[in-house]
Amino acid sequence: MSQADKYFAEIPQVIYGGAQTLSAYQYRYYDAEKIVLGKTMEQHLRLSVCYWHSFAWKGGDTFGANTFDRPWQRQQKSSALRTIDAAFEFVQTLGVPFLSFHDEDLLAFNHATAREYFNDFKSISDYVLQKIDQTGIGVLLATANLFSHAAFGAGAATSPNPDVFAFAAAKVKNMLDSAKQMDAQNYVLWGGRDGYNQLLNTSLPRELDQLGRFVALTVEHKHKIGYQGSILIEPKPCEPTKHQYDYDVATVYGFLAKYDLLGEVKVNIEANHATLAGHSFAHEVAYAAALGLLGSIDANRGDPQNGWDTDQFPNDISELSHVLYLLVSNGGFDRGGFNFDAKLRRDSTDLSDLLVAHIASIDALAKSLCVAEKLIQDNFIGEAIYQRYQAWDQRTHPVVSGALADLDALYDHVCSSPHLPVSVSGKQEILEAGYSRYIW
Amino acid sequence: MSQADKYFAEIPQVIYGGAQTLSAYQYRYYDAEKIVLGKTMEQHLRLSVCYWHSFAWKGGDTFGANTFDRPWQRQQKSSALRTIDAAFEFVQTLGVPFLSFHDEDLLAFNHATAREYFNDFKSISDYVLQKIDQTGIGVLLATANLFSHAAFGAGAATSPNPDVFAFAAAKVKNMLDSAKQMDAQNYVLWGGRDGYNQLLNTSLPRELDQLGRFVALTVEHKHKIGYQGSILIEPKPCEPTKHQYDYDVATVYGFLAKYDLLGEVKVNIEANHATLAGHSFAHEVAYAAALGLLGSIDANRGDPQNGWDTDQFPNDISELSHVLYLLVSNGGFDRGGFNFDAKLRRDSTDLSDLLVAHIASIDALAKSLCVAEKLIQDNFIGEAIYQRYQAWDQRTHPVVSGALADLDALYDHVCSSPHLPVSVSGKQEILEAGYSRYIW
Amino acid sequence: MSQADKYFAEIPQVIYGGAQTLSAYQYRYYDAEKIVLGKTMEQHLRLSVCYWHSFAWKGGDTFGANTFDRPWQRQQKSSALRTIDAAFEFVQTLGVPFLSFHDEDLLAFNHATAREYFNDFKSISDYVLQKIDQTGIGVLLATANLFSHAAFGAGAATSPNPDVFAFAAAKVKNMLDSAKQMDAQNYVLWGGRDGYNQLLNTSLPRELDQLGRFVALTVEHKHKIGYQGSILIEPKPCEPTKHQYDYDVATVYGFLAKYDLLGEVKVNIEANHATLAGHSFAHEVAYAAALGLLGSIDANRGDPQNGWDTDQFPNDISELSHVLYLLVSNGGFDRGGFNFDAKLRRDSTDLSDLLVAHIASIDALAKSLCVAEKLIQDNFIGEAIYQRYQAWDQRTHPVVSGALADLDALYDHVCSSPHLPVSVSGKQEILEAGYSRYIW
Amino acid sequence: MSQADKYFAEIPQVIYGGAQTLSAYQYRYYDAEKIVLGKTMEQHLRLSVCYWHSFAWKGGDTFGANTFDRPWQRQQKSSALRTIDAAFEFVQTLGVPFLSFHDEDLLAFNHATAREYFNDFKSISDYVLQKIDQTGIGVLLATANLFSHAAFGAGAATSPNPDVFAFAAAKVKNMLDSAKQMDAQNYVLWGGRDGYNQLLNTSLPRELDQLGRFVALTVEHKHKIGYQGSILIEPKPCEPTKHQYDYDVATVYGFLAKYDLLGEVKVNIEANHATLAGHSFAHEVAYAAALGLLGSIDANRGDPQNGWDTDQFPNDISELSHVLYLLVSNGGFDRGGFNFDAKLRRDSTDLSDLLVAHIASIDALAKSLCVAEKLIQDNFIGEAIYQRYQAWDQRTHPVVSGALADLDALYDHVCSSPHLPVSVSGKQEILEAGYSRYIW
Repeated sequence: MSQADKYFAEIPQVIYGGAQTLSAYQYRYYDAEKIVLGKTMEQHLRLSVCYWHSFAWKGGDTFGANTFDRPWQRQQKSSALRTIDAAFEFVQTLGVPFLSFHDEDLLAFNHATAREYFNDFKSISDYVLQKIDQTGIGVLLATANLFSHAAFGAGAATSPNPDVFAFAAAKVKNMLDSAKQMDAQNYVLWGGRDGYNQLLNTSLPRELDQLGRFVALTVEHKHKIGYQGSILIEPKPCEPTKHQYDYDVATVYGFLAKYDLLGEVKVNIEANHATLAGHSFAHEVAYAAALGLLGSIDANRGDPQNGWDTDQFPNDISELSHVLYLLVSNGGFDRGGFNFDAKLRRDSTDLSDLLVAHIASIDALAKSLCVAEKLIQDNFIGEAIYQRYQAWDQRTHPVVSGALADLDALYDHVCSSPHLPVSVSGKQEILEAGYSRYIW
Repeated sequence: MSQADKYFAEIPQVIYGGAQTLSAYQYRYYDAEKIVLGKTMEQHLRLSVCYWHSFAWKGGDTFGANTFDRPWQRQQKSSALRTIDAAFEFVQTLGVPFLSFHDEDLLAFNHATAREYFNDFKSISDYVLQKIDQTGIGVLLATANLFSHAAFGAGAATSPNPDVFAFAAAKVKNMLDSAKQMDAQNYVLWGGRDGYNQLLNTSLPRELDQLGRFVALTVEHKHKIGYQGSILIEPKPCEPTKHQYDYDVATVYGFLAKYDLLGEVKVNIEANHATLAGHSFAHEVAYAAALGLLGSIDANRGDPQNGWDTDQFPNDISELSHVLYLLVSNGGFDRGGFNFDAKLRRDSTDLSDLLVAHIASIDALAKSLCVAEKLIQDNFIGEAIYQRYQAWDQRTHPVVSGALADLDALYDHVCSSPHLPVSVSGKQEILEAGYSRYIW
Repeated sequence: MSQADKYFAEIPQVIYGGAQTLSAYQYRYYDAEKIVLGKTMEQHLRLSVCYWHSFAWKGGDTFGANTFDRPWQRQQKSSALRTIDAAFEFVQTLGVPFLSFHDEDLLAFNHATAREYFNDFKSISDYVLQKIDQTGIGVLLATANLFSHAAFGAGAATSPNPDVFAFAAAKVKNMLDSAKQMDAQNYVLWGGRDGYNQLLNTSLPRELDQLGRFVALTVEHKHKIGYQGSILIEPKPCEPTKHQYDYDVATVYGFLAKYDLLGEVKVNIEANHATLAGHSFAHEVAYAAALGLLGSIDANRGDPQNGWDTDQFPNDISELSHVLYLLVSNGGFDRGGFNFDAKLRRDSTDLSDLLVAHIASIDALAKSLCVAEKLIQDNFIGEAIYQRYQAWDQRTHPVVSGALADLDALYDHVCSSPHLPVSVSGKQEILEAGYSRYIW
Repeated sequence: MSQADKYFAEIPQVIYGGAQTLSAYQYRYYDAEKIVLGKTMEQHLRLSVCYWHSFAWKGGDTFGANTFDRPWQRQQKSSALRTIDAAFEFVQTLGVPFLSFHDEDLLAFNHATAREYFNDFKSISDYVLQKIDQTGIGVLLATANLFSHAAFGAGAATSPNPDVFAFAAAKVKNMLDSAKQMDAQNYVLWGGRDGYNQLLNTSLPRELDQLGRFVALTVEHKHKIGYQGSILIEPKPCEPTKHQYDYDVATVYGFLAKYDLLGEVKVNIEANHATLAGHSFAHEVAYAAALGLLGSIDANRGDPQNGWDTDQFPNDISELSHVLYLLVSNGGFDRGGFNFDAKLRRDSTDLSDLLVAHIASIDALAKSLCVAEKLIQDNFIGEAIYQRYQAWDQRTHPVVSGALADLDALYDHVCSSPHLPVSVSGKQEILEAGYSRYIW
């Protein structure tokens, strides 16, 4: 491809310019090679651009027409390859290591049969492999789209139609094989249609069993082909369905326990899915860490006043620093990373909007990583938690030691006490004040 | 007690008067002895009045003073016994079989030591046993209050203070022993303070482990004393804490799996807790049934526009019929029942409000039971679900039969198909229309 | 058009079959000619089918492709006229009096200039006029789509681009002129993009002023051309924008007061918009009635667990009866009516789904009208409210009579009282129980 | 009072220590005398401590007992005066200018008649006046509690009982007279019970009229006694009632317009009330500014996952800076100020929690004021908005100039255009990125 075909030719490589840089096209905080707690920023954050919102989406919404006029989408004929070019070029320009996509982001499904689609996909996939070789850019999240095709109208794995189950399974096999070829870091299952719209026409036990079988088949195939990536379930409580089975991290844990999949599957947490489920972003990350399920993270933000997935670019350092603290304290990512599953507002129509949105969000994560580093070095949160629970570390305390083995023993112990236990201040406001000192 | 001391003396026994009765003090639908699908209405519904809202509460809220002037609360001195009298008399007047209470409903905790409280509680408990003998009224849900005392400010089982853990354990032992004596049908754990207000000062792994240990101790004690009742966890997502660990049924399932308590503990579902967690009432019942956790039900309703537990009396026949259908289809209650965990509005100050609220809600459940009976007899929902999933019952279908054992086989099968699978209409609106015919 | 071209040829005219009819294609309650409180059911309900969801929409959503395969949409070439045929035929089959549409429902906007669009629209509009003449079907709500075109990405009336304001104005003029020709009962303004996504880039005073000017221009034009219909604003709090200026009825009232438009503009209330704004459907109707703004109603329902406009077909008799009671008590519709702004679930793919959904919802309204009739005849709610406020009808009470003209006089009056006022029971549960008797 | 009676004797006066101070008991940003945009920080922020949460509340909630053991509450007998002492001492220690209270914060209402209460109140009020004289501390918000007394169970101004209306009026007169004596900056009306719990038993027109009359009486009395303070309505959408009439700023605007009270009454915005109403804090401030209603601000924060008023101490610099920007751009406070209507978590039981919570929140506002100063000096937001709407400033543009006076003229103009208008990018992400540079 000649220089003339470049889409971001006017944009110089985005580099680290330091906190005082006046250029909106330089990083203020993200310095890929900078060492933070023993790893480079790049190794910590493992940043990924998402293909679907940034390259495949044309700016339409439920209420309105497309608003983006992207050069790579203009020529219908070769737009698939051109869009791949644009995406890789963009990731190179940003200087981040990963891209994430669904099969249908790379190649739209307008085929009469699955065989035709998979055949066409083969050449697209080869083109992507070639780009990976040329650029060194990797794939963070690979996934098959199991929700857009009309066949998935009533579910993919949980469809009442076994042929739809098979169709979904075939798409997963196709993409999982590609993921192995591309050495994708993770393979993600998002069950956007695997839920219900009306409980009256739904058999929960059947659908849960179908979903259990589907995930088990996916895990088996991973092992069969020797794919090294992690299998991740992405929780979301609703939208498009009224209720989705992978509601939140706690629900996914129970599901994996029920179908004996613990140890084989982790979660891909999305900030805005957390908030739709009634949780904070940090809650879902902390919960996944506590349950041993923390796989990868889709970094975006929702709107606190809107009840749907707004997928905005993340920028809240206070929230992100807490997430980074939880992540790094938990050992950091293994094969996971931060994927910007965020989209421009529909009237942010300039290419520069796309670029600056990514730069600013990358910086937000980088700055938050620095805050987390300081929190960890000072042991600020760790110390507060240690102090708060220290009575439980007193091994000789009869409640702790196990000397009081049952309720009767605990009862006798309590009855022998001349006073009632007192609650010690949780010091929440003081802790919040201290935390704020790290943020602002 | 002489007749003069009666609180509901002016109210005749509430009896079944039939759908056309003009008396607000007769049942229109609840006919205790009526046989529905092989059991009496009384056996199906196993109705219980809740002591805390109806007899212990005085009408105050966060913003205002007490508004109720109940005769049994007037004389401070003997009010505990008088309140017990009033409660049993009320349940008798209604003609329902059960009452439900916390330890502190029967006896307020104003004691300097636990021993003193437990000593005083003994005589109160004896008085309750005597009333049970006299009246034949049973206890549906017995529970220890682990949230009101100042000691529980930062949690009961999950308190950072082991002495609070012990205090909570002692209260459970005391109440569990009483529950055995009273032959309470169920023992409930509601962890109102077992959650967090600020993730920054919380160790999730520690607190979850403490809660796991606490529930395990409770189960052990049940077996040790030979208590026949069920141990139930009552899910609630928040309030008073920002986040409670027993968030919803799915979360409790995962918790029980993690701490190896499946089979020992079931759930007590509350309608308004379901809606606070972002679920419909029917969802939580259906989920509990699907996961084998359905224990008992707190019947109330929330306000769809308010974000806290309004605990209103249930009256939506459409919703309740769905719940009754799910319950009865699942085999009905074993030791569970419907407890009216509902409270009057604070400005519903007349005793007649309390009475009519219960009568109307009992009737709502009775009518819903009749709707459920018809739905089951006609197999209306069953047939719709059967039709919808019938492709999965075709044992020779290669996806169903297991002939296609892995993703590769499914892929080959799909690729050999000359067309894509089609989604069949979910017929949701038609089903809703049909369902409406049963309701209205 | 020959019979062969009919889309609902297999469906006989939907007629009233009575409550016991076994046909899903007959009305159980809607008997157009039946007299209720002095008017026919048809005159009370003034039912309208909405064109956009039922005829223009193809079953796509943000996450997925089109799922409907409607015969009238198959032939791209003449689909506009065929869709008009289908819509009128459907309304005739249902036997209801009205249809409602946007300009772009009748003719999609794929034109390079406004002039071309308006020219093409002229012939489409003529075709609609012809259908109106032939069928006697009227138009309940006519409206210009000011949200779908890319030009409206940042607002229509409130766009930062005056040319977009002009474009929106031209579309309104075009449609208002058509509305006059078609004798549309109402002209609706829904400002789906007239709000903000980010307050930081928004000048509220400017945008409110622009919106005020726009509505004033619309009102002026109505008078200029002698259009007899009502101008209605349709409140919605958000979606697609974060915040829409026509948030709810109370907000619209303030807006009309500010721009001196009270008396000229009323509201078109939508059930699901009410709930998104944190209100019950009945609340918005009651509020509009209290403020003299009640124009017309979009009858649908939302999902209590989902935070977006689900636009489901209405079926809750309890809620609808309250709405009908409020409406009829307030004098009923003048030029308004009930428009079914409801859509099938995306996987309800059969034409019969569309038909039964309408039939069931029409019946829900008809049955609710009968409930309202009984509530009014018995004066059940009226009496309860009369009783509750009767102290305010005692003209001699000094607080009522005006004898106590200011705070000083009221203070002296209160200080002279030997006791404090008492709150009388609101009897909410008793009233709810009584109301339930009318519903179930 | 001797030094021995001091409650905060161990705490030295809180002073400005600079951003690097290591003391949690010094301000890092609040430097009362520092000049920011021509006024001191003290003059800008006009900080007030709220008496109810910080001095009258004892740590109880709906689910639990009191947890605070405040020295001033210990001796029941003289606790009213001691609590006043503590409050004034605390405000002095913080070095802020104002205190805010209800009548019943100063003196609990346990009286048999209103006369007795007002008589006792007189001496309490005198004591407060004396403290004001001694300390120079002023009153930011004075208000009568019209929600706690049982008499207000069904509303104050909107009670169905005219005697309750009178009782409420007398309380307002009493407090308004005190407010004048104390030179309170504002008099606030919060209608916590002036709403409905059930629309079925509510006459909206009556209740709105009563509320209109009540506010008018308050305004008249203000003028009659020559009180210089502002009358403020405090919007809140719900809690304790299902729906409150002063729902949000837009609703209050319409109410004031309807009862001809515009110009006489402004609003006291509370951050957490804004979010309960589905708005951002900044939205309500911007809306009030746009409508000319901005009076005063209750600074707290809610929990984004909880649906009730959590009243937490504010600490989000990003949100507060936007609010400060809007406030200062709008001319700043006249008689308003920032009142910390925030409360400790119930298990934050130490006095130091109370102190640090205030210090940190004061600093959060001070820092946000500095951010706002920079935003204004750089004209960052102003310029972005100017650029965005600049087409509307082109006086010769025919849409702007008024040359196109009606829809017909606009239509002709649009039809003469050879192309359609284009939407220009809203640059939301770029603006957010730029804004972030000011915050973090």
